[in-house]
Amino acid sequence: MVFKKITLIGTSPESFDAAADDAIDRATETLNNVHWVEVDELGVEIASVEDREYQAEVTVAFRLED
Amino acid sequence: MVFKKITLIGTSPESFDAAADDAIDRATETLNNVHWVEVDELGVEIASVEDREYQAEVTVAFRLED
Amino acid sequence: MVFKKITLIGTSPESFDAAADDAIDRATETLNNVHWVEVDELGVEIASVEDREYQAEVTVAFRLED
Amino acid sequence: MVFKKITLIGTSPESFDAAADDAIDRATETLNNVHWVEVDELGVEIASVEDREYQAEVTVAFRLED
Amino acid sequence: MVFKKITLIGTSPESFDAAADDAIDRATETLNNVHWVEVDELGVEIASVEDREYQAEVTVAFRLED
Amino acid sequence: MVFKKITLIGTSPESFDAAADDAIDRATETLNNVHWVEVDELGVEIASVEDREYQAEVTVAFRLED
Amino acid sequence: MVFKKITLIGTSPESFDAAADDAIDRATETLNNVHWVEVDELGVEIASVEDREYQAEVTVAFRLED
Amino acid sequence: MVFKKITLIGTSPESFDAAADDAIDRATETLNNVHWVEVDELGVEIASVEDREYQAEVTVAFRLED
Amino acid sequence: MVFKKITLIGTSPESFDAAADDAIDRATETLNNVHWVEVDELGVEIASVEDREYQAEVTVAFRLED
Amino acid sequence: MVFKKITLIGTSPESFDAAADDAIDRATETLNNVHWVEVDELGVEIASVEDREYQAEVTVAFRLED
Amino acid sequence: MVFKKITLIGTSPESFDAAADDAIDRATETLNNVHWVEVDELGVEIASVEDREYQAEVTVAFRLED
Amino acid sequence: MVFKKITLIGTSPESFDAAADDAIDRATETLNNVHWVEVDELGVEIASVEDREYQAEVTVAFRLED
Repeated sequence: MVFKKITLIGTSPESFDAAADDAIDRATETLNNVHWVEVDELGVEIASVEDREYQAEVTVAFRLED
Repeated sequence: MVFKKITLIGTSPESFDAAADDAIDRATETLNNVHWVEVDELGVEIASVEDREYQAEVTVAFRLED
Repeated sequence: MVFKKITLIGTSPESFDAAADDAIDRATETLNNVHWVEVDELGVEIASVEDREYQAEVTVAFRLED
Repeated sequence: MVFKKITLIGTSPESFDAAADDAIDRATETLNNVHWVEVDELGVEIASVEDREYQAEVTVAFRLED
Repeated sequence: MVFKKITLIGTSPESFDAAADDAIDRATETLNNVHWVEVDELGVEIASVEDREYQAEVTVAFRLED
Repeated sequence: MVFKKITLIGTSPESFDAAADDAIDRATETLNNVHWVEVDELGVEIASVEDREYQAEVTVAFRLED
Repeated sequence: MVFKKITLIGTSPESFDAAADDAIDRATETLNNVHWVEVDELGVEIASVEDREYQAEVTVAFRLED
Repeated sequence: MVFKKITLIGTSPESFDAAADDAIDRATETLNNVHWVEVDELGVEIASVEDREYQAEVTVAFRLED
Repeated sequence: MVFKKITLIGTSPESFDAAADDAIDRATETLNNVHWVEVDELGVEIASVEDREYQAEVTVAFRLED
Repeated sequence: MVFKKITLIGTSPESFDAAADDAIDRATETLNNVHWVEVDELGVEIASVEDREYQAEVTVAFRLED
Repeated sequence: MVFKKITLIGTSPESFDAAADDAIDRATETLNNVHWVEVDELGVEIASVEDREYQAEVTVAFRLED
Repeated sequence: MVFKKITLIGTSPESFDAAADDAIDRATETLNNVHWVEVDELGVEIASVEDREYQAEVTVAFRLED
């Protein structure tokens, strides 16, 4: 059994929780067998957006098919 | 005056804040003189739970009785 | 074009999100051209406050005037 | 000449060496031109397996075709 | 559900795998509900032992009873 | 909006700047919507090349299509 | 032979050395077989004390009884 | 004698060296007694600029006047 | 309530304790509401001084006025 | 009593344990008073060898003669 | 086959690349079988030199003779 | 101009300052042109000594002769 890890950054105008969920939603929609997620970094983009864009960088671990 | 630090992981189906509070609740129920808490890591368990289990690993500092 | 970074710690009786927003509010009120914010650490103060004080240490990057 | 790095976690009921080899086997079966591997973390899963599952997280570097 | 983490160092005259197993054996004999183990550091003591003493520092995560 | 991060190592017989550009060239030729790049490590390979091969390991962040 | 590690914070109005000794005194009074101590962090508390309180966070390694 | 450290990010369309010099120029124009500079991070902005913007985050140490 | 952190390096021909105190003295003379100090690094300058100059890099946290 | 530390990388076609022992053998053959060894990194070279070359980077601490 | 690693700091009035080459030149002139080099840190000395002295701290890995 | 760095551990029955001085004394007695010293780690050995042995691991930077 082998797992692979990839790194995604989710975004949300609302909160860090919603930003992490945004990345996890993307992972579970496009990958089978997502097992767990680690939060690497939290940040907020301000200059290029209207108000505040919360960002959560996460590492997603999923089991590879044999 | 000497403090001791221990490491707990709280969990919640709702949010990272609730997961941290879960660990802090446990600490304050079982330890006297909890002074502060540091968040070490945030993660999400997916494979072994129904939906998503938010997890917060925290280090709890409490003052030892003399 | 040169950016400067400073480190602030916001606080809130409610949540880590509100603590981060507290620091970002202070930054955007007193500095021009705030571009982005990185979350360095999350913690909770317990001994010296009534209930729990959520804290978010953030680094704020802003563009210096020429 | 450009290399790419990916992160895999191999598993074994026997040992950390076998867990690392499990991930490297997978990498060399599915990728051309694997050049080297770095061990990032070692761990053991206990609760969800029969005995002990040794795990080795490795980063695999392989040369991209031009 | 709250987990606690403790840090142990196992030793063995044979190998790093045996040193890690030494610590895990101790943990599973004295604690209920051990869930997973992370290897923090590997080392070898030479001066104060007859030949070589392999050492594995591990962090053990176990679920606390409610 | 979700970003993905991948890790590449560019090489050059000339300089670290050219090695980083080598990896960025590859990324922008094969990926849409590359937003930013972080330099993780710099190194020089000597034994297996004629003179010196400068290497730059970079992490490339690009926006995923919806 | 298995060692356990715990984390203590000693305090002193005098110096970092005295703060470290404060934590080591506590460890050796309450634990058998303390083998070595690592200094993790040094700090100074100012706002909540009369003058300055030097603090030394240390990790204490002690051998467990069989 | 007390030094203070601040963090700046210089930018350049040309190279990492020029980006670091951009930040150091700014520091030496606006501060007396700059003693040394440490490079913290190198990066490249791509999405919001015409070609590539090399960035160098540096920490500048300068001696405070008595 | 928002805190700000700045980084200072104190120096002393005597000891690390005196070097840290040198930086803290400077902070408390020029800033109101200094709450705590973290020691980041200790070092000794030898080549450019007569004997040995002990240095302590510290981060000072102080509460901003509303 | 003063110790010195040096860094060696041992190699083996067999296992990480044998790679670490390779470096420790070299250290104990050429140095007196080796006291302990810390494992810094584990890796596997693949491209330039026949099968797999396990590598263990270790730091060796030995007591200097007076 | 055993490698040894040493740490050098090269300097140049021109650039970081030239500073790294300065250290690598020294290594290859005085050591046989230099295999690779890792860049640990980049910095700039300002106070004690005429203009700017670029510095590159590198770790050099070379194969030991049997 | 090229510097080299080596790592020493000084010891003292008295204090961390004396332990660091012990290592620096050794360095300046046996090496020319010692420029600066960085403190890497502080620790205390207890089990194998009569009382407490303070230890300071330091990295010593010295200029190589041309």
